[in-house]
Amino acid sequence: MQAKNPRDSRTILTDMVLPSETNPLNNLFGGELLARMDRAASIAARRHSRRITVTASVNHVAFNQSVPVGSVLTVDAAVSRAFRTSMEVYIDVWMEDRFTGEKSKANEAIYTFVAVDDTGRPTVVPPLQPETALEQERYEGALRRKQLSLVLAGKMDPHDATELKALFMD
Amino acid sequence: MQAKNPRDSRTILTDMVLPSETNPLNNLFGGELLARMDRAASIAARRHSRRITVTASVNHVAFNQSVPVGSVLTVDAAVSRAFRTSMEVYIDVWMEDRFTGEKSKANEAIYTFVAVDDTGRPTVVPPLQPETALEQERYEGALRRKQLSLVLAGKMDPHDATELKALFMD
Amino acid sequence: MQAKNPRDSRTILTDMVLPSETNPLNNLFGGELLARMDRAASIAARRHSRRITVTASVNHVAFNQSVPVGSVLTVDAAVSRAFRTSMEVYIDVWMEDRFTGEKSKANEAIYTFVAVDDTGRPTVVPPLQPETALEQERYEGALRRKQLSLVLAGKMDPHDATELKALFMD
Amino acid sequence: MQAKNPRDSRTILTDMVLPSETNPLNNLFGGELLARMDRAASIAARRHSRRITVTASVNHVAFNQSVPVGSVLTVDAAVSRAFRTSMEVYIDVWMEDRFTGEKSKANEAIYTFVAVDDTGRPTVVPPLQPETALEQERYEGALRRKQLSLVLAGKMDPHDATELKALFMD
Amino acid sequence: MQAKNPRDSRTILTDMVLPSETNPLNNLFGGELLARMDRAASIAARRHSRRITVTASVNHVAFNQSVPVGSVLTVDAAVSRAFRTSMEVYIDVWMEDRFTGEKSKANEAIYTFVAVDDTGRPTVVPPLQPETALEQERYEGALRRKQLSLVLAGKMDPHDATELKALFMD
Amino acid sequence: MQAKNPRDSRTILTDMVLPSETNPLNNLFGGELLARMDRAASIAARRHSRRITVTASVNHVAFNQSVPVGSVLTVDAAVSRAFRTSMEVYIDVWMEDRFTGEKSKANEAIYTFVAVDDTGRPTVVPPLQPETALEQERYEGALRRKQLSLVLAGKMDPHDATELKALFMD
Repeated sequence: MQAKNPRDSRTILTDMVLPSETNPLNNLFGGELLARMDRAASIAARRHSRRITVTASVNHVAFNQSVPVGSVLTVDAAVSRAFRTSMEVYIDVWMEDRFTGEKSKANEAIYTFVAVDDTGRPTVVPPLQPETALEQERYEGALRRKQLSLVLAGKMDPHDATELKALFMD
Repeated sequence: MQAKNPRDSRTILTDMVLPSETNPLNNLFGGELLARMDRAASIAARRHSRRITVTASVNHVAFNQSVPVGSVLTVDAAVSRAFRTSMEVYIDVWMEDRFTGEKSKANEAIYTFVAVDDTGRPTVVPPLQPETALEQERYEGALRRKQLSLVLAGKMDPHDATELKALFMD
Repeated sequence: MQAKNPRDSRTILTDMVLPSETNPLNNLFGGELLARMDRAASIAARRHSRRITVTASVNHVAFNQSVPVGSVLTVDAAVSRAFRTSMEVYIDVWMEDRFTGEKSKANEAIYTFVAVDDTGRPTVVPPLQPETALEQERYEGALRRKQLSLVLAGKMDPHDATELKALFMD
Repeated sequence: MQAKNPRDSRTILTDMVLPSETNPLNNLFGGELLARMDRAASIAARRHSRRITVTASVNHVAFNQSVPVGSVLTVDAAVSRAFRTSMEVYIDVWMEDRFTGEKSKANEAIYTFVAVDDTGRPTVVPPLQPETALEQERYEGALRRKQLSLVLAGKMDPHDATELKALFMD
Repeated sequence: MQAKNPRDSRTILTDMVLPSETNPLNNLFGGELLARMDRAASIAARRHSRRITVTASVNHVAFNQSVPVGSVLTVDAAVSRAFRTSMEVYIDVWMEDRFTGEKSKANEAIYTFVAVDDTGRPTVVPPLQPETALEQERYEGALRRKQLSLVLAGKMDPHDATELKALFMD
Repeated sequence: MQAKNPRDSRTILTDMVLPSETNPLNNLFGGELLARMDRAASIAARRHSRRITVTASVNHVAFNQSVPVGSVLTVDAAVSRAFRTSMEVYIDVWMEDRFTGEKSKANEAIYTFVAVDDTGRPTVVPPLQPETALEQERYEGALRRKQLSLVLAGKMDPHDATELKALFMD
């Protein structure tokens, strides 16, 4: 299978924050943002794999900034690394000031998807070839994050997680 | 502040999977489940703190099992550890076979919430006192997970993450 | 068929009141509450019968208390009596003060469901065996309510509604 | 206050049954229909009273016929009797065959609303003057239904419910 | 095929403006109104043709008046002219003051629908016979609007658009 | 006020077609697409003007292609011409084949927005400076479309609509 670049799967979902999506402080509910990011990331994974994709895991989502009702929010997702049948998708979320137009980072998240066939069985996906420095950095981090998930799920011996181990030793 | 038990914050949200929440395989969208878990976990955090609570992070959500349309889904959330102004909420999701009534684990997730006052500023929450063995285990894991988040966010030196480091050494 | 207890079908749906579900006074719309209660009660009926269940009637829903946006609402439903192919479900709705955590009764409702097979035809359900005093009281009232429905629908001669008649005579 | 006729408050809500509103048999969920009827009936009550109206009770809703997805459904609501601060609204629901256009009765329901001022306090409404025979019949039944509600809620002695009592005696 | 009158297809959708449908000024979003009008107009087209109908085009929708949250909105749609397989639907939207009950015109729109069979292929519809003066006027305008669409889409030579041309010459 | 380019306002909304947004043929409802386009176009108008924007009119929306459930749909909107307080937004909608990734044009639409201040009063917007050939073509067409709207609304004498008149003469 021919490798693809992150820009082949890049997906942009710009939409408003509607009154029905807000918490008592009139900011976007965390759960609504999780759902939006899931849809955009799922499209990115589908664009990379050309398969049906199902969410496998969500990791390291940090909500650093509240997003007020009426904001314009841009969810920007692209595949950051492909494994055999799964893909890590890296998501940047930008918020835009209504009046000045100034953009600020509202969120970052990492979702993993599995490509499946019509019966729901995992199926092989093309490899990913990063191009920019940022893409390269995220590509390398993806292996570390995968090892971490396996260790935390008890599916990998911590001593075999070489990438991860290096973080705590040297 | 007086300590509370996990059962003080336990929140149960049993509801059906509606046709409007499904993906092309007629299973529940990952994003919809993330939103439901966020609402239940947010109520658990509110019950512990009696404050407005906002989602701070989502970690280690693994979607191991697909949930078909028409399923009965039970989201069961309780605070697993309280820090100064934040709370970790542990969420178990159960799926119920429509005909046999057999229950199976559909998902597990860990969300973190911050308690805030009416102006959105973090505010102190009561400590948590675990009771059962499972609650004790989740309570202890919470510190390791917190250190991990700080290390991954570059806010803590890996060598200071004593709980975490122990996992990879000895 | 073996009898079941009300706790076999008990269903708890705790969720927030979202801004999109409110009327001009910023309280929960009656219609939204009716829909939530229907979903919880339908799950209770399904748990009792292990069949697809369809709403047959709604009776005696009294909205005594308004429920402000942002409230935590608990819908607590259980089968109160089983007839041949239908079940009466009794629903208690509790509201929780955001700050003190104090609970107050927000509503009570009674729904009836019919169990059907895949073609939509009514199918026999197990009998119900009440346990507590409250369950016994609701069990007995259910017959009176059934007679009342039949009388009002012109399907039963008032003089045959012995349970009901006793209420006005003695 | 000048009396109004049922046609002054008559409200027609014709809309499709959308895929997102259906149960596992692909028919309209009972809960969704309850919510639609509540909105239409609430508008009827508002048209009669020219006040904010809140749902007070729902009685005697019988779901006799399933409504398949894609159906055109007409909710036809009008005030059937006005009391001091409350109004009974009678609702007829019609279903229309997609191809022949034939109409059939899908449902009947009776809702009660209270008119309130901006602070939520009950406020007086105009009397209702029925015109047609059917309106007259519903007008008379409304008193019987009101007595029944009061008796069942333990707020009226059954022996004082003269209208109702007559049903079981003579 | 026998001709039908506009009143055969007339469709009334009266519903409230809910908080979840509003923009930052607390008025109904243009997009929500477009969707409501589409549903009502689609039912009108179905009533005329007794076929599945799909939106073909939207023209000349002018939003002259903002519609505040809590308003009662009446969408009144009827087929204004039938062509071979398509129908023009004319839509009047009325807004009702909550307290005085006074009605004002909130909007006018013109949608075109095509009748299709189960495979999505266009299928012949009955002719329309206007009755009132207003219906006659809209019937005549429909041909001019159709020519205009064809000219603007480059599918008709402007010199052949006789109805339209007359508007600019003489 | 300094002129802006179309790319300053360009807005991309890529999202899936969900099961809850479909008609009986399992294709996207026209009304849902109208609402999505309105949201994207409204953001484009806001990016150009840095003001609250309200939909003023919708013109010439042609639904040439049905969009099946599960499709990935990209709404691509940019301001095509600015008048004194209003802006024309041109919208291209692309559909993406789930498996081959091939893109096809699903729709084109033209919306007009007015920029308003916090009290809802129209306010001046910057001029638009087209750059590419396509932008130039749309910029020129916008004046013709504006004259057409004014003529059809009876607010301009057809003989003064010089741009438009030229289409039918010479």
